[in-house]
Amino acid sequence: MAEIGVGMLGYAFMGKAHSNAFKKISYITWPPPLEPKLIGIAGRDPGAVAEAAERYGYEYATGDWHELIVDERIGLFDNGGPNSLHAEPTIAAAQAGKHVVCEKPLGRDADESYEIWKRVEATGVKHLCGFNYRFVPAVRLARELIAAGELGEIRHFRGRYLQDWADDPSLDTWRFAPEDAGSGALGDIGTHVIDLARFLNGEIASVSGLAKTFVAGRKVDDAIEAAVEFENGSVGTLEGTRLALGRRNALQWEINGSQGSLAFDMERMNELQVFRADGDRARGFKTVLVSEADHPFWQYWWPPGHIIGWGDTFVHELHHMLDVIASDGDVAPYGATFEDGYRASEVGDAIIRSGENGERVRLSYRT
Amino acid sequence: MAEIGVGMLGYAFMGKAHSNAFKKISYITWPPPLEPKLIGIAGRDPGAVAEAAERYGYEYATGDWHELIVDERIGLFDNGGPNSLHAEPTIAAAQAGKHVVCEKPLGRDADESYEIWKRVEATGVKHLCGFNYRFVPAVRLARELIAAGELGEIRHFRGRYLQDWADDPSLDTWRFAPEDAGSGALGDIGTHVIDLARFLNGEIASVSGLAKTFVAGRKVDDAIEAAVEFENGSVGTLEGTRLALGRRNALQWEINGSQGSLAFDMERMNELQVFRADGDRARGFKTVLVSEADHPFWQYWWPPGHIIGWGDTFVHELHHMLDVIASDGDVAPYGATFEDGYRASEVGDAIIRSGENGERVRLSYRT
Amino acid sequence: MAEIGVGMLGYAFMGKAHSNAFKKISYITWPPPLEPKLIGIAGRDPGAVAEAAERYGYEYATGDWHELIVDERIGLFDNGGPNSLHAEPTIAAAQAGKHVVCEKPLGRDADESYEIWKRVEATGVKHLCGFNYRFVPAVRLARELIAAGELGEIRHFRGRYLQDWADDPSLDTWRFAPEDAGSGALGDIGTHVIDLARFLNGEIASVSGLAKTFVAGRKVDDAIEAAVEFENGSVGTLEGTRLALGRRNALQWEINGSQGSLAFDMERMNELQVFRADGDRARGFKTVLVSEADHPFWQYWWPPGHIIGWGDTFVHELHHMLDVIASDGDVAPYGATFEDGYRASEVGDAIIRSGENGERVRLSYRT
Amino acid sequence: MAEIGVGMLGYAFMGKAHSNAFKKISYITWPPPLEPKLIGIAGRDPGAVAEAAERYGYEYATGDWHELIVDERIGLFDNGGPNSLHAEPTIAAAQAGKHVVCEKPLGRDADESYEIWKRVEATGVKHLCGFNYRFVPAVRLARELIAAGELGEIRHFRGRYLQDWADDPSLDTWRFAPEDAGSGALGDIGTHVIDLARFLNGEIASVSGLAKTFVAGRKVDDAIEAAVEFENGSVGTLEGTRLALGRRNALQWEINGSQGSLAFDMERMNELQVFRADGDRARGFKTVLVSEADHPFWQYWWPPGHIIGWGDTFVHELHHMLDVIASDGDVAPYGATFEDGYRASEVGDAIIRSGENGERVRLSYRT
Repeated sequence: MAEIGVGMLGYAFMGKAHSNAFKKISYITWPPPLEPKLIGIAGRDPGAVAEAAERYGYEYATGDWHELIVDERIGLFDNGGPNSLHAEPTIAAAQAGKHVVCEKPLGRDADESYEIWKRVEATGVKHLCGFNYRFVPAVRLARELIAAGELGEIRHFRGRYLQDWADDPSLDTWRFAPEDAGSGALGDIGTHVIDLARFLNGEIASVSGLAKTFVAGRKVDDAIEAAVEFENGSVGTLEGTRLALGRRNALQWEINGSQGSLAFDMERMNELQVFRADGDRARGFKTVLVSEADHPFWQYWWPPGHIIGWGDTFVHELHHMLDVIASDGDVAPYGATFEDGYRASEVGDAIIRSGENGERVRLSYRT
Repeated sequence: MAEIGVGMLGYAFMGKAHSNAFKKISYITWPPPLEPKLIGIAGRDPGAVAEAAERYGYEYATGDWHELIVDERIGLFDNGGPNSLHAEPTIAAAQAGKHVVCEKPLGRDADESYEIWKRVEATGVKHLCGFNYRFVPAVRLARELIAAGELGEIRHFRGRYLQDWADDPSLDTWRFAPEDAGSGALGDIGTHVIDLARFLNGEIASVSGLAKTFVAGRKVDDAIEAAVEFENGSVGTLEGTRLALGRRNALQWEINGSQGSLAFDMERMNELQVFRADGDRARGFKTVLVSEADHPFWQYWWPPGHIIGWGDTFVHELHHMLDVIASDGDVAPYGATFEDGYRASEVGDAIIRSGENGERVRLSYRT
Repeated sequence: MAEIGVGMLGYAFMGKAHSNAFKKISYITWPPPLEPKLIGIAGRDPGAVAEAAERYGYEYATGDWHELIVDERIGLFDNGGPNSLHAEPTIAAAQAGKHVVCEKPLGRDADESYEIWKRVEATGVKHLCGFNYRFVPAVRLARELIAAGELGEIRHFRGRYLQDWADDPSLDTWRFAPEDAGSGALGDIGTHVIDLARFLNGEIASVSGLAKTFVAGRKVDDAIEAAVEFENGSVGTLEGTRLALGRRNALQWEINGSQGSLAFDMERMNELQVFRADGDRARGFKTVLVSEADHPFWQYWWPPGHIIGWGDTFVHELHHMLDVIASDGDVAPYGATFEDGYRASEVGDAIIRSGENGERVRLSYRT
Repeated sequence: MAEIGVGMLGYAFMGKAHSNAFKKISYITWPPPLEPKLIGIAGRDPGAVAEAAERYGYEYATGDWHELIVDERIGLFDNGGPNSLHAEPTIAAAQAGKHVVCEKPLGRDADESYEIWKRVEATGVKHLCGFNYRFVPAVRLARELIAAGELGEIRHFRGRYLQDWADDPSLDTWRFAPEDAGSGALGDIGTHVIDLARFLNGEIASVSGLAKTFVAGRKVDDAIEAAVEFENGSVGTLEGTRLALGRRNALQWEINGSQGSLAFDMERMNELQVFRADGDRARGFKTVLVSEADHPFWQYWWPPGHIIGWGDTFVHELHHMLDVIASDGDVAPYGATFEDGYRASEVGDAIIRSGENGERVRLSYRT
């Protein structure tokens, strides 16, 4: 089986999630399109990165990500570092001929995201932006149902990503430093909502909204709110907040069409709510446990009803990336490319701008 | 027991709901502050209004609402007619010295609502605008918890009223005629969301949004969407649509504060979701069946867990109005006055305006 | 419109529920088959029964139920008294030619229930035993779906009625006195489960179970548990307990057939869970809000999604009884007759007996 | 880090689940008590077992499980074969000095289970029976809350394991062959309910129930039903069926005590419903997303709200087994030993016997 060497930047949250995924791909999504070999992992804290290498089985640890760039055994560079470390290493890896995965948000703003996209695109390597929620089976099933026209003409998309961990003013992570993160809830979770809105309902045409910071002294936004129009004529709302107490990872969305509706909550990620206007006297939303043999990704997993977890979304995502690489791009376009990463940033910036100037912002996307 | 004569305008949906309520008040909210006597009912269709009089026990039916105005036995005029019949009869009744109840929206726009409010206010009678969802026990409990500070500082309010009955282009009711209704989803259900937002979270400071019509040929809006700021610094979204397939009467809201959160869905109107940041290891939202002896309105009803229905909200609402009249206003300010009706219209108009001019509209309320 | 005079025994919980129902029948189930006139109400506490008469509009109150029996204006005797007062007044009323409604359990045991049934039956009057949960729209819809064969061959029925109010050892009501109540949870709520099992799934063939008392000093059972076989070959469990903390009125049941399944919880009485094995890729239980125009009883109520309450089940139940009387029995057999009341007692006694002798008890029903 | 060689019998459902777990233990439950090395895997189909070896990384595949027994590099023998292959290989492995894991049911009946337990016990090796649901975080949290007395005195345990895959008469697997499986739903899923009942609520004192076969020609039971008494005085019901259409993996239980209640559904395995009788006016069950830093097993996983899957229960289970081995048994007794496996069989046999002889069976457990 053909192999591909993996170089990982970041050993914490995303480093763990991605490393776990690469290890599971080898046998869960069997046979894998390419067998991932964990070559090197980079990070700032020497002790921590060394332990991560031992834990996940990377051949070496390094404090300098450039080492990964020059390692010819590495064919895939996976960037799970803080947002400020997205641009330079990712572009360098691509220019060294490595395929690249980069966590979201792609850049800290639309300009940086655009720069990353275009410079990587110019190298011809494959690229994937880490919008892993596209790879939740229920989300994929939703996309398939929508694409098949089962909802008819779409009228509404309402999405929100509610978390509550940021309520503590004493919290101190790079996620609250503007230079490191670029934005707060917007880049962290707002971009996920924006990406799913686009994935399920197409391009966003306008936003009217605002960003808001609640915690005294915090320099990034705690929440974003927007009323939106889509290019397909539907309208709705988008929201992201890290201050919705009691909501831990509630990426919730609902989409209403002329023939039916779908609803989802990431805290119950194995379920999709499905309504069809089919005239059945027993009228209502079905709670579909997305785990049937003919459901997306389920050929890899367990018997129906034996559910999977959040971490498994990365198995699907990175398996898709290996598939893209192995097939030279000849696969269904379900993954987020860097162009998708850029577009999410463009929408995010528009919400900020709308908040600042008090006007509806009509989106235009650079090409 | 002191009595009050009731004159009802309208015999259909709201006529039935209000008549039912007046009849139940006599023995459910025992002893009632005033015993309602059903005197006269007015409506356009002679046969239908006559049957309504017989059905509900009004002494007479009439095709001319002026007859109610001049009937001295009537002390309370209840206007459940179409929106275009809100202003003139309500004002006339007040000027004839009758206390007045008027269904929402108060007027067809803010100007008309303001006019109704001010002219009625000038007469000195008591007035109540039919925002019956204030009288859902779970909503009242929410208000009490918020007022007691149990949620701390409020950060978010997100509300939406989702129905789906308006999807049929062949539907023909006064609700789709601009001159009769004033607006579509906005006045019909959007005002309920706006009123609950105000009831639970205080005044709205700005809206950025739009109205949208989907059904070809329809002359009123099918949906409204808005990002909002409140005067207390919280932010959120408001939405109303009659085209969310599968949602029948889903007036849903969630409010997040620094100490806890609450969530509600009118389709499960007896339940309130309650989250408290109290450090309990068992962390999560409680599903509170609002039916305990110490819960709002429950002194009138059944043992715990024996739930009530939508129609019963009007029992509470009109009982409150009788209480206001009997006590000359010396009761807790839980009912919506005409000023509340006007303010809801002001916010509604602002959403329309924001949609038209593409700008955030800062609210200012006339006094 | 033809009228029927009503005499009520009992003014507390059931007296209130039934009086409310008679008053609503007059206009909610319009036009009623017979117009109920509230004539007299009887009860032990003179002050309380007098207030009840005033509150609900009975023409007179009395401390002696015999007064109702001899009142010729009364055509329907409704017995909402304690269980020990079911037999004598009910039989006397029937023998006086009055139609009779009697709350459940019909008698305090199978023998007494049988006696009531046979002696009333012999008079030729109409009789109804107060199993009001047959008149929940979702339960009726379930019955219709099952009768139409939509579930195929039935394999399982599991039912439980969970409440928690009896946890306090200091509670003192007739419900804990063996001579007044006959049994504890069994007669109070266990009979409801038994009746719904029979209503939805046919006769019970055998029970293997037990009764249990937890609260020290209590002389009636706190809970019953049974494994059961039905005559149709299906098997399942039945349970009733007043000590399931957190469950207020959770009459829950699920039925599984070869083509589908249904599930219900009285705490969400407006919802029916419906699963159909129809090969749909979106496979799951539908949450049906039983409130559509073509749903049982809904011709009387509100637009879809505007739900009803527990008290409204009695409106349906007593309306049915009036229908039975007015049509001389020519209506669909949805109400529980006294024979049904007797059969529920027979099953209940069998559970007690099984608990005592440690054997499966095969049911045989007297005719 | 100390290593332990693993020999696996079975490559299908459980072979995959256990192999996945051993691979994840190495880095998810970091650092593992012992580093599992996948040495050999045995199974009947040469091609399939060879592919499994390649897929999961076993050093070799074999058609003869004896090869694993004699392989001195193997310190842990994991038996995921059909029930008929539980006894001989497991005993042989133990007698060869290997620690043993055996899937449930331990034996095909109580006698065989007893034999396995006693003969393995005699060798002094560590043994674990594969009741993986003990290792669901929500189940473990429940156990901890109960052990801490938070529910008070227990009154009820009701458990059911509902699946629906066995409805097809044409299905042909070893699970329907009496000689291979021993029993049907009883051994397959009924034992899980029995084990969780014991794990959470202690020993079962008596059962009154039955087994039932619905599908024509099937030689094992499709369902079991029982009313049960526990040694602690509580009572309840147990059920297992593979014919509850719409239920895919619904291992559901509820436990009620004098201070609170807990409820669980394996289809929402990350949630625990928690009710506490604490006098809070907001009274109800909390939906606890069991994923907090201080929740069981969560030190190994993700941030709160980022849920895990069914497969991850085996990570916890086998990690526990490694811990038992490494510590020579000095760990909390959360895993099911072979004695637990035997006791579950004893209860299962008692249900069968009760069904056959129509009597309540009082349990007595061999020592």
